Amino acid sequence: MVQTIFSDTIVALSTPPGAGALAVVRLSGPAAVAIMAAVFSKKSLAQAAGHTLHYGNLRDPASGEIIDEVVVALYRGPRSFTREDVVEISCHGSDYVVRQVLALLLRHGARLAEAGEFTKRAFLNGAMDLAQAEAVADLIAADSALSHKVALNQLRGGFSQELRDLRARLVQFAALLELELDFGEEDVEFADRTGLARLLAEVRGVVLGLLRSFELGNVIKNGITAVIAGRPNAGKSTLLNALLREERAIVSAIPGTTRDFIEDEVSIDGLRFRFVDTAGLRDNPADEVEAIGVQRTRQRVRQAAMLLYLFDLSEIAPAEVQAEMQELTSGLDLPVLAVGNKTDLASAKTIQAFEQAFSAGQVPLLLLAAGQNQGLEALQMALVAQVRGSALENTASATIVTNVRHARALETAAAHLAAVQTGLDTGRGTELLAADLRHALAALGEITGEISSEDLLTSIFTQFCIGK
Amino acid sequence: MVQTIFSDTIVALSTPPGAGALAVVRLSGPAAVAIMAAVFSKKSLAQAAGHTLHYGNLRDPASGEIIDEVVVALYRGPRSFTREDVVEISCHGSDYVVRQVLALLLRHGARLAEAGEFTKRAFLNGAMDLAQAEAVADLIAADSALSHKVALNQLRGGFSQELRDLRARLVQFAALLELELDFGEEDVEFADRTGLARLLAEVRGVVLGLLRSFELGNVIKNGITAVIAGRPNAGKSTLLNALLREERAIVSAIPGTTRDFIEDEVSIDGLRFRFVDTAGLRDNPADEVEAIGVQRTRQRVRQAAMLLYLFDLSEIAPAEVQAEMQELTSGLDLPVLAVGNKTDLASAKTIQAFEQAFSAGQVPLLLLAAGQNQGLEALQMALVAQVRGSALENTASATIVTNVRHARALETAAAHLAAVQTGLDTGRGTELLAADLRHALAALGEITGEISSEDLLTSIFTQFCIGK
Repeated sequence: MVQTIFSDTIVALSTPPGAGALAVVRLSGPAAVAIMAAVFSKKSLAQAAGHTLHYGNLRDPASGEIIDEVVVALYRGPRSFTREDVVEISCHGSDYVVRQVLALLLRHGARLAEAGEFTKRAFLNGAMDLAQAEAVADLIAADSALSHKVALNQLRGGFSQELRDLRARLVQFAALLELELDFGEEDVEFADRTGLARLLAEVRGVVLGLLRSFELGNVIKNGITAVIAGRPNAGKSTLLNALLREERAIVSAIPGTTRDFIEDEVSIDGLRFRFVDTAGLRDNPADEVEAIGVQRTRQRVRQAAMLLYLFDLSEIAPAEVQAEMQELTSGLDLPVLAVGNKTDLASAKTIQAFEQAFSAGQVPLLLLAAGQNQGLEALQMALVAQVRGSALENTASATIVTNVRHARALETAAAHLAAVQTGLDTGRGTELLAADLRHALAALGEITGEISSEDLLTSIFTQFCIGK
Repeated sequence: MVQTIFSDTIVALSTPPGAGALAVVRLSGPAAVAIMAAVFSKKSLAQAAGHTLHYGNLRDPASGEIIDEVVVALYRGPRSFTREDVVEISCHGSDYVVRQVLALLLRHGARLAEAGEFTKRAFLNGAMDLAQAEAVADLIAADSALSHKVALNQLRGGFSQELRDLRARLVQFAALLELELDFGEEDVEFADRTGLARLLAEVRGVVLGLLRSFELGNVIKNGITAVIAGRPNAGKSTLLNALLREERAIVSAIPGTTRDFIEDEVSIDGLRFRFVDTAGLRDNPADEVEAIGVQRTRQRVRQAAMLLYLFDLSEIAPAEVQAEMQELTSGLDLPVLAVGNKTDLASAKTIQAFEQAFSAGQVPLLLLAAGQNQGLEALQMALVAQVRGSALENTASATIVTNVRHARALETAAAHLAAVQTGLDTGRGTELLAADLRHALAALGEITGEISSEDLLTSIFTQFCIGK
């Protein structure tokens, strides 16, 4: 990896914008400490040791005006996030103050950082590889236990280590093939073809395993979209509220958190479910309008990963439920749960009728009383089982791939490894084998950034937030 | 002031909620360091010196699970914001991570801080007085140069010092009166009545000056609401955009700043003007609808601090402008500016006609071409002059009172000082003079919190954001 030394010093607000107790403005680069010392009341800052905190006034030397009372956190490179000198200014959390602080630092020689530029510098200065850098953004975006765990593992180098192991084995293989090429005219075989084939199969197995984990990874990262359909008054909002209750207690510990967005998102056993509302089926009396509603619901069902058909046990017959589910999912290969609500109001006979009607079919039937918090746990288990059943069983690897770019690179690597395997089987020339192997190595190297282009870096880091 | 020692340790998110590069969770209290050390990978933290930074993993000891890689800022009391031990954890700026961090710290013995509780502790532990504590919230809310300056001055103790001086002079006065009371039966006069009257007049003059500054203070803190009225296409949005141009360049340096709200707020010479949109006058052809529009505009004009009547010089006659302004402001005592737009399209004769028509009246006429950025500076000066003319001239004191609570306390103090003055003039008994003086001292003491009640503190600090 190239050790890059940047000559300019970048600055950005690193905390979310808006009013709060405090805001943090971050500087990184060779002049970070000098710029800060120029506008700080304690000139001793310039000589201070790293990993220290300094309280004082931020002052515009031109006007003598004090902008804020601040605490300055000082990091000396390479012991910092970017490996450069880094200064973090904790100021009062007002947009006005932040504007003044940024304007002052810009006047003193810093320039505004681009999105993700701090992390990009961390990568280019060798503090982390590309997969780890990408995990920083994933970690910030993580909103469930599993997505957080996967991102943190990736940030801590778990995935990178696995890729390094794969590459190391392939490089050994490649070296032997290249040796054969050097002695090409003498027609020697340094590499034991049988051993090579076995090694290749192993490596390819791991790559395919990682690729399969992407199915679950995608679900973990982006959540599972589950459409809830059903007639009006089936109890949809009561059910969602019951599922949300536990989560809300924790969410409310964070001031100002917008709760709107979780109105229909619930994290169950580490997986995030996004429940999509649909117009109540048979909502409207007019047939034409009703038809449009059903059409829209069907459209949403087509985009979903799961259908949850909710009904009031006392208001609908088993056959009707099955007909409506059938109507919604015809032609689709979609997991469906039938959820009968209001068991507390239904007669034993009704419940028996439903159990009988569903006993033969493939659609699981869940019975609950959402308003009474009865049967929720079974529903949660059923939801998670539906997702894991299809995805988790395919995932042998402890590492889960969540990034589309990584999945694409793994696909490329897998294809080239398959070509090498075929080549070995059919006795193809060493040169072709070596070329395919190089392509496979390059694809794997792209993931960790051992091989990278400026275009690739730009496309990755512009997706970051500014200040990271 | 009572030195209060709190036995519990409080925790809160101190940065604004939402996604960002980093979030800061703050702990304060006797167990802050111990709680942090229990969940931190570096156990040496417990012995570390204050004002130091520590990089490591935040880990749940129960599950062994790592929650985040964090930097811990350690402050040892009394060298901290609250004068207690304070720990600030910089973690990745995701709501999910913050929730996990808070939940972990709560499980280890911290409790969630109430709104303003950190600042309240700073006050109760003697780190600042009440007026300074209130300035913390003002500083966070400050959105213009002047409101920021006033809040910062108050935070830095400028206002408090002025009050202390006042109180010191009155206390001296009171001591002499109390002495007379002790010797009451002997009917002596220790206090020189003439000297006392002079001192009292001086002190009362300062209090009244501070009270008058509240008029400007209120404007500085809350902005000046200026209604812009005028026919459609007079150029309102062009004018606003021209005024906003400079400010936007700075605002855009902060990521994610919602720009909507400044669509109609402009800071000019440190004063914040809030421009209120009105339905274009004569907007609609139907008379009834038009009448409602004008009615609404009039309503907004009544609530405003200023009217800005904007018109296209070529589209309307001077008499019409004056009639419409008259119609809008009849019965109101409101500063008005007549602003003629599009000078670049108007003939010299037209401009002359307007200048002549307005030369005799009391309404200033401003001529500009907003689209060409011509004449904007004169308008800005006129806007500021309108505000300062009425408010600033009354303000002799360098300190500007912006807080309603302070203004109320100053009013009470002024009333009691007036009573003392009258008492002196009419030779009222020492006991009554002393009582009034005590009330005046108490009122002044309430501002800085030398005299405070739990109710008062609660009403003040619950207006803070959580985490401050």
